[in-house]
Amino acid sequence: MAFENIAIIGLGLIGSSLSRAIIEGGFSTVCGYDANPDVRKRAAEISLCTNITDNPAEAVQNADLVILCVPVGAMGSVAAEIVEYLPGHAIISDVGSCKQSVYDALRNVLPHTIIPAHPVAGTEENGPDSGFASLFTGRWCILTPPDDAPILALENLSQFWQAIGANVEIMDARHHDMVLAVTSHLPHLIAYTIVGTANDLEAVTQSEVIKYSAGGFRDFTRIAASDPVMWRDIFLSNKDAVLEMLQRFSEDLTALQRAIRYEKGDELEALFSRTREIRRSIVEQGQDDEAPNFGRKH
Amino acid sequence: MAFENIAIIGLGLIGSSLSRAIIEGGFSTVCGYDANPDVRKRAAEISLCTNITDNPAEAVQNADLVILCVPVGAMGSVAAEIVEYLPGHAIISDVGSCKQSVYDALRNVLPHTIIPAHPVAGTEENGPDSGFASLFTGRWCILTPPDDAPILALENLSQFWQAIGANVEIMDARHHDMVLAVTSHLPHLIAYTIVGTANDLEAVTQSEVIKYSAGGFRDFTRIAASDPVMWRDIFLSNKDAVLEMLQRFSEDLTALQRAIRYEKGDELEALFSRTREIRRSIVEQGQDDEAPNFGRKH
Repeated sequence: MAFENIAIIGLGLIGSSLSRAIIEGGFSTVCGYDANPDVRKRAAEISLCTNITDNPAEAVQNADLVILCVPVGAMGSVAAEIVEYLPGHAIISDVGSCKQSVYDALRNVLPHTIIPAHPVAGTEENGPDSGFASLFTGRWCILTPPDDAPILALENLSQFWQAIGANVEIMDARHHDMVLAVTSHLPHLIAYTIVGTANDLEAVTQSEVIKYSAGGFRDFTRIAASDPVMWRDIFLSNKDAVLEMLQRFSEDLTALQRAIRYEKGDELEALFSRTREIRRSIVEQGQDDEAPNFGRKH
Repeated sequence: MAFENIAIIGLGLIGSSLSRAIIEGGFSTVCGYDANPDVRKRAAEISLCTNITDNPAEAVQNADLVILCVPVGAMGSVAAEIVEYLPGHAIISDVGSCKQSVYDALRNVLPHTIIPAHPVAGTEENGPDSGFASLFTGRWCILTPPDDAPILALENLSQFWQAIGANVEIMDARHHDMVLAVTSHLPHLIAYTIVGTANDLEAVTQSEVIKYSAGGFRDFTRIAASDPVMWRDIFLSNKDAVLEMLQRFSEDLTALQRAIRYEKGDELEALFSRTREIRRSIVEQGQDDEAPNFGRKH
């Protein structure tokens, strides 16, 4: 492992999982910081990091690698807080769900080597207790280095992610943002919307929505329980790609609405038949459980 | 158990789960039939029912209770096939996901006591091998008796569903169709749409969609892998309620799209915060797993 001292800023689901994975693997020391004093206190109680500091400057001052695990809208201000204390050789990375905007925000403040990263992994939970060391096992971590990124730094960061169990992919930041708009941001947006729609109905009570949620609705409520601030920032930061995907989705939904209105059963069946194949591939490639109902006990 | 002989027409996920639950509980004999000869053959191989017949008439001729487990669009034609052979005292029920249209189709053909039912349970799988006896445990089964349904028949059918583990609720058929439009039909329609949208992109490859599906998309692919014919029929049969819910959803999605376009972070955060409560209630009421990620192993 090329990094002796790693600083993690932000000790939520991803930051705390990273710290656990690094420490359990014995790869390096971890200096942790979170802007929320309650989170720092809890992180210290559960010995989440080698050391928890009371300010971000202290966390990064001896770091070879700094990983920012804060909402994407907060990256620039965190960078501004640490820039004076950051060793010149340190590599700066992050785990945000949009990459071009994060790179721009960091580059605007930091003269250091910046290699943005995005581990495509998570749960609907948050906070320092929600993390676990195996979160990244078998998941993909996408690195979006700028054209002038030093090759050695990129190799070291790739090895770091592989050491904690992830598969690494290198991608252009703008392409990343387009891919994730469809595989992550649009699904979250739709899930938040339908849960809101169900909540607002007059003819159907909330109690009925809950009782009969096993018909499909409950699947959407899981991702609609994700962290609100984190997701607000993602939609604002990846605005163009999200709006583009949303426009396509709306067109497709309108076409389906029309097929129902005019009772075009063949069109419905044709669409419903071709969507099975993707599910099969996702399961085959180990990106989801094979067991029905995601292997739920219920 | 008031029913000595139960006939099950249609041996897919629900029909085969019913048969297993009845036989494992030792409640009655089960005569099974499926229009597909391969399904009948497989059902016989795995001893799914007490007896598998080669035509629906033979399956129902000694039945006290007949449960139609076929796509909702096929209910009327199955009823026409069995009406001549059905004992006069037999109760006819079903498991379809829309209730008013099914009742109308059955009443049009059968002079018998009809009490439609809908167990809100299932997985994305289908066929006689996909069923399991505990599918209905702790799930809700909604009965939608017509006003003139004999009370004893209703009580007997309620006891039947409770015996195989379900909670029973009595509801007006039209209200059922509205409730299920939001808790089941709209979620399926949206899931089918987004998987189709992702499939059609030029800028993002299918391989990328699959690799990075853990960001949220994979949750939608599960229900978009459900049986195409069954779902085609549901959307056509519950057209009015589905179109009404779809219209509300589209309005809410447009409002969210606008909030993103004009960067109204507060509006986004407010919606994302209120959707968590429903998830919490669903888990508290035992309608979903408490474990993060639905308890997935991945």
